[in-house]
Order: sequence, then C-alpha cells, then structure tokens
Amino acid sequence: MSKIDLSIYNLRTDLIIEDENLHHQEQKIDNLTITSTKKEGNYITITFDDITDHDNQEIITKNLTNIIKNILTLNKIKDTDSALIIGLGNELSTPDSLGVKTAKKVMVTAHLYEVTTVSNKIRKVYAFNPGVMANTGIESAKIITSIIKEIKPNFVIAIDALAGRNIERINKTIQITDTGIHPGSGVGNNRKEISKKTMGIPVIAIGVPTVVMSSVIVYDTINYLIKHISYLKDNESVSKLTYLKTNYINKIKDKSLSNEDKENLLGLFGGLEDSEKLSLINEVLNNTKLNMIVTPTEIDFLIEKISKTIAKSIDNALHRQIN
Amino acid sequence: MSKIDLSIYNLRTDLIIEDENLHHQEQKIDNLTITSTKKEGNYITITFDDITDHDNQEIITKNLTNIIKNILTLNKIKDTDSALIIGLGNELSTPDSLGVKTAKKVMVTAHLYEVTTVSNKIRKVYAFNPGVMANTGIESAKIITSIIKEIKPNFVIAIDALAGRNIERINKTIQITDTGIHPGSGVGNNRKEISKKTMGIPVIAIGVPTVVMSSVIVYDTINYLIKHISYLKDNESVSKLTYLKTNYINKIKDKSLSNEDKENLLGLFGGLEDSEKLSLINEVLNNTKLNMIVTPTEIDFLIEKISKTIAKSIDNALHRQIN
Amino acid sequence: MSKIDLSIYNLRTDLIIEDENLHHQEQKIDNLTITSTKKEGNYITITFDDITDHDNQEIITKNLTNIIKNILTLNKIKDTDSALIIGLGNELSTPDSLGVKTAKKVMVTAHLYEVTTVSNKIRKVYAFNPGVMANTGIESAKIITSIIKEIKPNFVIAIDALAGRNIERINKTIQITDTGIHPGSGVGNNRKEISKKTMGIPVIAIGVPTVVMSSVIVYDTINYLIKHISYLKDNESVSKLTYLKTNYINKIKDKSLSNEDKENLLGLFGGLEDSEKLSLINEVLNNTKLNMIVTPTEIDFLIEKISKTIAKSIDNALHRQIN
Amino acid sequence: MSKIDLSIYNLRTDLIIEDENLHHQEQKIDNLTITSTKKEGNYITITFDDITDHDNQEIITKNLTNIIKNILTLNKIKDTDSALIIGLGNELSTPDSLGVKTAKKVMVTAHLYEVTTVSNKIRKVYAFNPGVMANTGIESAKIITSIIKEIKPNFVIAIDALAGRNIERINKTIQITDTGIHPGSGVGNNRKEISKKTMGIPVIAIGVPTVVMSSVIVYDTINYLIKHISYLKDNESVSKLTYLKTNYINKIKDKSLSNEDKENLLGLFGGLEDSEKLSLINEVLNNTKLNMIVTPTEIDFLIEKISKTIAKSIDNALHRQIN
Repeated sequence: MSKIDLSIYNLRTDLIIEDENLHHQEQKIDNLTITSTKKEGNYITITFDDITDHDNQEIITKNLTNIIKNILTLNKIKDTDSALIIGLGNELSTPDSLGVKTAKKVMVTAHLYEVTTVSNKIRKVYAFNPGVMANTGIESAKIITSIIKEIKPNFVIAIDALAGRNIERINKTIQITDTGIHPGSGVGNNRKEISKKTMGIPVIAIGVPTVVMSSVIVYDTINYLIKHISYLKDNESVSKLTYLKTNYINKIKDKSLSNEDKENLLGLFGGLEDSEKLSLINEVLNNTKLNMIVTPTEIDFLIEKISKTIAKSIDNALHRQIN
Repeated sequence: MSKIDLSIYNLRTDLIIEDENLHHQEQKIDNLTITSTKKEGNYITITFDDITDHDNQEIITKNLTNIIKNILTLNKIKDTDSALIIGLGNELSTPDSLGVKTAKKVMVTAHLYEVTTVSNKIRKVYAFNPGVMANTGIESAKIITSIIKEIKPNFVIAIDALAGRNIERINKTIQITDTGIHPGSGVGNNRKEISKKTMGIPVIAIGVPTVVMSSVIVYDTINYLIKHISYLKDNESVSKLTYLKTNYINKIKDKSLSNEDKENLLGLFGGLEDSEKLSLINEVLNNTKLNMIVTPTEIDFLIEKISKTIAKSIDNALHRQIN
Repeated sequence: MSKIDLSIYNLRTDLIIEDENLHHQEQKIDNLTITSTKKEGNYITITFDDITDHDNQEIITKNLTNIIKNILTLNKIKDTDSALIIGLGNELSTPDSLGVKTAKKVMVTAHLYEVTTVSNKIRKVYAFNPGVMANTGIESAKIITSIIKEIKPNFVIAIDALAGRNIERINKTIQITDTGIHPGSGVGNNRKEISKKTMGIPVIAIGVPTVVMSSVIVYDTINYLIKHISYLKDNESVSKLTYLKTNYINKIKDKSLSNEDKENLLGLFGGLEDSEKLSLINEVLNNTKLNMIVTPTEIDFLIEKISKTIAKSIDNALHRQIN
Repeated sequence: MSKIDLSIYNLRTDLIIEDENLHHQEQKIDNLTITSTKKEGNYITITFDDITDHDNQEIITKNLTNIIKNILTLNKIKDTDSALIIGLGNELSTPDSLGVKTAKKVMVTAHLYEVTTVSNKIRKVYAFNPGVMANTGIESAKIITSIIKEIKPNFVIAIDALAGRNIERINKTIQITDTGIHPGSGVGNNRKEISKKTMGIPVIAIGVPTVVMSSVIVYDTINYLIKHISYLKDNESVSKLTYLKTNYINKIKDKSLSNEDKENLLGLFGGLEDSEKLSLINEVLNNTKLNMIVTPTEIDFLIEKISKTIAKSIDNALHRQIN
C-alpha cells in the first residue's frame, strides 16, 4: 500500500474564514456572526442561518449595508465618487448566476446624469455584466479592464458566486473584501486580478459560496462520521430520537476520537492527516471524473433571495437618499 | 463501538436497474446500452455517454422513439388513441424541471381537432403540467386525476426527474415504463399512484435521474477509493499520468480488495456490508441536515438537451406523419 | 360611395367602464379614480396614472386591498373560507401573462394545513394556472371546472389580462367584479363562463387591460385629431411649445368640432357615427389582416409591477395576519 | 383652420427599402424577395411571408447564409479573419430583445483557440451584448468601442431590432448592410456610429423591424381605407365574403382614389400630402403621449424563431466546416 502517491494538492476555497492560519476576530450581532480578517487588505464575513426568513433578511440587509459603508470609508471613498457594479459569473448556470442576478437588481443612475440634474444624495452608479469566456470567447478580466478604462469610475463593487470548502457555509455566508477580484477563479481557472494595485481604484468584492465540490462533501461527511461515533460512544444510552432533534450538528461539533479509535474505525485512511485525506478523495474523484458540484435542492430560490438582499444593501450603502 | 445503531434504512432510487435483485436483460445498440426488466410491468432503460454530442443525440432520439413505439404496442394502444402528456416536477428548480420543460416542447394537437379536419396521421395530443404542491397547495396526483376524468384521454405519458443511487448515471439514463407514476416520489414523499390499475388507462412514465443525495456520492467515492487502491496495488509501477487518462473509471470498475485489505484500509467501517455503510452515511448526513443534492455543474444546459431529445422522440413516436 | 357596407360590428371591450349605457358612480380617493357599476353583479374599477412610481404603488395596493375585502364581504365570504387563485392567460406572451405572473406571486398556504397547525389568521389558499388551449389542447374552462370540483374551495379569485377599447387605460386600470370569468375572452373567442351561477361559489375576477387592437388606436387617434384641431381653432395664437407641455391630453379632452367642421376636416368619414367609423376601420384592418395589438414599449416592466401589486393586495385582503 | 402648423417632421425608419428616393433592385428567389440598394455602402433586404413555417425557415436560412457570405467577400474578409458578434438592444423588452437573443445563439469559438488547436475550417468568433443605457448607465457605443479596441477582431457583425414605417414588414424583413451601426437608434435617440469609418474594420449590421409606432398604423390604415373604398367603388356588386378571402391586401394594393374623391371621403385631411398627413398624426399622438408601439400578438414566439434563423445563418456563413 505504500505506493499511494499522497502528493497533496490543496482544495481551493474562496473564503478567507476557511484559512485556519489567519487570525479571525469574531463578534455576534443580532443572530449573525461577523468575522474580520486582515490579509493584504480587509475581509469581513457575515454568517447567518436562514436568509429565506423575512426577519433574518432584514437583519442581514441592515448589517451588510453598514459593512459596505465601513469598507467604503476605510478606502476613502467619498459620497460623490462614482461606482461601477460588476456582476461576475454565468447567468445560465443557476449556482454561478448570483453575480449577474445581483448586478441586474442594483439601482443604476449614471444615465440620469446625462439628461437631468440629479440630487447630490444620489450617487452616480453604473452596472455591467461581462459574461463568461465560454459564452463570449473573451476573458472577463479583459472586458472589465477595458470598461473601467472607458468610463473611469472612482471605485468598483464586484459580486460573484464562490466555491467553499465547507458544506455548512453554502448560501449562508457573505464575504466582503477590498482586496480585489480574480474573475474566473470561482469555478474555473485563476485569471487576471482586478484590484487597486492593477487598476488604481478601490475594488470591493462581495462573494457568496454557492457550491462545494463532491470531494468536500465526502471529506466533511467522514469528519462528521468520526464526531458522530464519538458522540455515540460518550452517550451510550442515547436514543435515536434524541439525536434526530435539530441542532444535532452543534452537539457533535467539538467531538473527536483518539488517533487509535480513528484507525480502528477507518483503518489506514482514518490515520491520515486531514490534508492527506482530502488529497486522496480528490484524486479518486478527479480521476473518475465524478467531482461534481453540490448545491442545496432549493438553490434557484436561494439565489433569488440572496441577490435581492445584496442588491438592496448596495443601494442603501451607496446613496444617502434611500432609507 | 458496538453501540452504533446500524438499523438499515434503504436509500431510495427511482431506477429499476439499480435493483440488483431483479433480472436485467442487456443489449448494446449503436453506442447505447438498452436494458429490459420485468417487474409488475415493463421497464426499458437507455444508458448513454454524452447527450450534448449532436450525433449521440440523434442516436438516442432514434432508439427512444422505437422504445416508446414498442411500449405503446405492448399496451395495445392504437394509432387513433388520444394521448395526455404530463410534465411532473417544479419548473422553478432546475434539476426538478425536466418534466415540465419536456411537456412544453411536445407538439400539442388536440385543439386543432375542434377547428379543422386533422390528418389521420396526426394523433390527438394534450399536454399538461400540474405544478408542485409547494406552489399550488394541491397534490399533483389530485390535479392529474381530475384532468384525466375530464378529458378522457386513451393513455398518458408522464415525464419526471428522478433520484438515482449512482452518480455515474445522472443525466445519462432514460427509463421508460408502463407501470404508472407516483407524483412527488422523485424528490419528496411518496403520494398517490396513477396507473392502469387506478385509472383504467395505460400510464407510460419516462424518467431521468438528475440528482443524487450527498450520501450517495460519499458512498460511491468510498467504493471508488477501494477500487483505486486495488488498481494501484496491482499496478505498482503505474505513473500518475497513466491513470489520469480518460476511461480510468472503466479500468478500475471491476477491481476490489479482499475483506482483510478493506478493513486494513478503512477499519471497522471498511468491514461493513454495503447497505450498512450507506445507512451509516445517511444517518450522519440526515442528522446533521447536510444531505444535499449533487448535480453536474452544467445541469441547466443538460436539462435543456435532454428535454429536447425526449420531446422529439415522443413526437416521432406518437404521429405517423413526422419523419 | 353609397355602396359601402357599414354593418356595425361592435369592437369588444372587457372593461365595464367603457360601456356608456350604464350608470357609473365615480369617486376620487388619493390620486385614484374609483368607479362602481352594477350590472348583474358588482364592478369596481380603479384607474391610476403611473404604477411604476413607488408611492403610487403603495396607494394602489392599499385601495385594492380594501376593494377586495369589500367584495368578499358583499359575497358573504367568511375569514375561514378557502380560496382558489387562478391565473388565466398565456405565460409565454408578455401582454397575456399578467394572470399567471400574479398567481405565481400570491402566497399559497393550503399545503401547510396538511403538515401543521396553521394560525386561524392565515386563510387556506390554493393557486393554479390552467394554461391556454394552444399549449395544452384543453379548454381552460374545463380544467378550472374539474379543479374546482376536486378541491372544493369556498370561492375563486381569477386574474386575467383584458382587451380594452381606449388606449389611455392600458395598464392604468384594474377592474374587480363578482360576476365571474369567461376564460379565453380576453384575446380569442368567448368560451364557457365560470361564475356563481355555474359553479355555486363566488367567483371574483380581477382584470387589467394590457392591449388594444390596432383599430382602436386608429379610432382614438382620429378622435384626438378632431379635439386637437378644435383646440387649435379656439387658441389661434397658441405656440407649439405650449401644447407640447404635459397634460395636453387633459386640455383637449372635452373639445369637439361641429358636425359641419368634422365633415369639412374629415369628409364623409368625419360625418359618420362613432360606431360606424369604428366598424369601417375594423373592416379595413381585419380584411388586410393588419389588426395587430398595441402595447406600451415598456410592457415587460409594467406587467412585472402590476402583477406584484395585485398579488400583494390579494395577500393583504385574504389573511388577517399580514400587515 | 389655416393655423395648423404642418411643419413636417419625418417619421424615422431604419429600413432602407422604405426610402423611396433610392433605386432598389429587386429579385424573386424561392418565395422570397431580395432587394439590393446602394447608399454609402451595400444594403440587402430579404422579405418573406411566414418565418414560423419550417420550410420557409430553411429557405430564409439558405439565402441569408449566402447574403452574409457575399457581403463578407465584398468587404474583403478572409476565411481566417476573426469575428465579433454584437447583440444590441434590451433583453428585458421582448420586441427589443432580438439582437441579444441572436448573439446568445451564435456559436462562440475564440476561447477554444486558447486551449487547443482548432481546425482551420472553424473561424475565431467572439460574442458580446453591451446591454442598454437604462440598465448599465453606459452608452452601448462606448462599451462596443472599448471591447473592439481590446480584442481587435477583424470585423464585426451586429444584430438589432429596428423600427419600421410599414406594418406589413414587421418581423417579415431582414436587412443586411456593411454601412455600420448606430446603437440606440432602433428605439431611442441616435448615438455614436460604429462603422469602418470610425473603427477601421468592416461592421456588418443585420436588422429586423419588430415594431412600428402607433402613428404608422394610423397612417397605414387611412391609406388602406382609401384603397378599400376605391376597390368597393370599382366592384360594386362585390359581396363581403369575396373580400374577406386571403390576399385581399394584394387585391387592393394598387388601388387609389382621385384627389376629389379623397377629399370627398376624408375632407381637408384627405387632401393633405402623405408627409403632411403623417406629420399631423404624429403631432396628435406625440402631444397626447399615446404614440405607443405596435407588435403582432405572437411577438415572443416570432422573436424566438427569427433569432434562431439569423444565428444559424451566421454560423453557416462564418465557418467552412458547418453544413
């Protein structure tokens, strides 16, 4: 068995909070968790439970509005600066359509400036969707760069669907950062960066993990299997009815097994390091071409709700005249 | 560890070919596999590789047309009998929209009979989409029953998205049967049956697995892991480049490990029966509420292609005047 | 010229306020005009200016909610009675899609009653779209009748796009009546009636004129031409700039010309009775097959706004727990 | 009455064949009429009867393919030159969505060149939809210019919905020209030109009239009224059944009345020059803000068919490997 090549290839995540080597400052506001991370710029992450609940949606909107306002202030963006909203991703693929759907819902005002006098409480806002290379034949980074050069906005807000490494966070996390965007990174290959460094203007990115790869769900499930067995071991008399209750996931969250028990339960595989396990799963799924995407059943409905919430928060944050 | 409740709950599949207790008669036609199974009626299953390829699509259409014609003959349906096409599922959820999208593409002719003389080579065809209970508040079985009573067609063809138990078959299998339909079984709970027994007319069902549950992908991956390790063991000098080639999945298909090696590799878990493994995975994922659906990335595109292929085959099979 | 056959065929309208033989009681509320008419039942008509304005939309919603509540009371409908919402028309034709788009936005609650205890402030609501005969092959009246028999709601609310006889009212009028519906009347032929008389339960219809026929716009334009000339005659020194101002239409509304002047301006044609003029225009357009539909440029956008407003008003009127 | 200001404002048309001051060379091919006009470049116009008929669609595709090939040759475009396809107009407004819907259906190949060796029978093709200013805040001409500068295609093909001046031609005419495009001219105001002159590369435009303004239909109807009366006068004994037959429009096409009869029938108005009549109608409709758009009832369906036909013709004309 020693011949297995365990060369570790990292499974990509677009979420900074999934990088365990960084320091994350966490606070609870309302029923949200808001995390701040510094790494070549600012990252704010909102995690929430259920965006389809109307009250939750209002709370997320309120907090997201404030976070966007703060990041604008941090980047010295003035009330009179013009904004270009960019919707990244593929409108024709539901989990990848979040960016385009959001940009289409944002209030556009730039054309009004050409025909009338606009209140100084209304910011000049453009919106644009570059499409994806498979449909246009053009790298979206190239399109964005040429549009920015043409209309010269003072800053950019780009929205994109992300890939995450943890099934619990799908459609339950919004990440806001001023470190720029990497069009095409979400699903396919990494392409040109669009950031303050490359464009000379602040580039705010708002992202939501909408998919994970199959390998992630296999890896997560095996981890939960270990926690589940550990919980059952500690609670020998537990009845099935008990752990079928909601929040079972929170009950087992911090459970673990000893290395010996792990190997007992899962053999050689159980004894591997986390990154080795993930590598091996990835190896199997990529070679068999079965590394598909995992989404919640109600993805179409969730994308609609999230895009509405983000668009409303952007509108609220950008203009002084909207309540 | 003996306290683990391994009470086996079967993971549902809508595909008869995934029932290993039945006798399946298999033949290769063109590059398709066509399987016939008898169980309280006739089941024909077409499996294919890539429906997005234009030539493949033509081959599938030709064979599906013949299969539908045969099942109509088996059920003593005459050329002059009228058909009701029913598109099951939720149009607003991409993987569940196959039935509705197909029914919308089928050629409807019944209204022509009211205003003109129609060639006897054109069959009288109605089409109808009952929607799903979450959107209508009404059980789709109730709607279908009342429509059948009202318009009295001579037979029914219903199209639905199915759940499968094997990731390899997603969007690569079409199942045709004359045993009727069970609206709502595909995704949610089992509801009323609509069949020759309950309605007095033949009810042909055409289904395609478009999703699997997360537990399936975990289970399948663990099986492929075993086959992968077995392959590597037998081919010690294999380079990574070799097994990265296409068709790796076919190379490892029949590989296995001895029970001792399995336990060595995967511990107690590896020593479980297949059904016990699946039960345990299901237990973990259902309790943690993480049993999501898995679909290929390009699901929107695939549903479009498959619905077009099925609709065209139905048109070809129903009318004598279409080439 | 005496050979012209001026046999009068009436141009159909679905709007009761366009029937000048009836008595219409009119009141101004907020900036709306609300008209009540009695004819084998109750008709309430709201006319407004611009539903795309957010404040107007709120005012319309408030008043429409009250009107629906009143008509429910008039028809002795109790808070605990169940409702079936029906969206009539063709979803695939924008001007005809109003009914379906509205029904899809209404809150459906009936399925909740099967799985949980529902607050008595939430009414049991079903929703259903029968489609159109060209797509289903089935008369929508037949589908509706069989669904009503199956689920036995206590009353029906049906929404439909109407044809009007006056271009000024397109997308600016909502008609509510308890006299039932006539599926297919909006665009095509008159089919079966669905009303208290035929079904034994109250059938409330909510309609909006979204199209007029070309003949209407020709007829209306000729009338406005006469008013325009009359206005210019009375205001000889008027500069073009003056009458280009907004509300020119209101300025000329009550203008007319003497019969002599009309014949002077428009010859024999000008001397015809209104109904004769309309007949002649219809004759020309129907024979040349050019009697097309007229819609505002922004029809897609307007249908979205109106369907949202009606759906919200229905939700507000049906449940005691919604504010 | 002498005070009426008949200052003539021309009603805009985007169709060259509606310019009666030019020389149009006409030929009949299959059941199409193909017209060639020279005016600062080449214009080819195809007129046909019914694009929803499958055989007609094939004939139009065959001829449109040849016309595009010819215009490429005329503009010295080589088989290896790269193409940028641009879909103009607003996807959210059905009659204005033709350009975007077509560009989305065209086969894009440029991205393949980056990952593989492409047969020299497959041309390098990009596709791009700039959107409309009301949704992006950016003039589409600006976006197009910056994209052309960025990707440097050898030529451009742009598709757009046009406004016509004759109701008979709506959705029954395709105009191809090498004189460039004027984004935004179709519906709104005239903006920047994109042509060989301004960009240095050939710019082929393909346009289809999908709307007329109300004033056009009023004007056309009055003309048909005159022809109708003239026909009736000449055929006193004609029964209504006769002229209700199809092709009545062709029977009356060349009919006219003497000026005396015109004034007799339509008074002062009837005695006006054509351009004066149109001016007056426009004056009335613009001032009363009732100059809406006129489309056939089945516009959604027609746009689908036409966009498919144009996209297929472009694919056929651009690549040598497609049959």
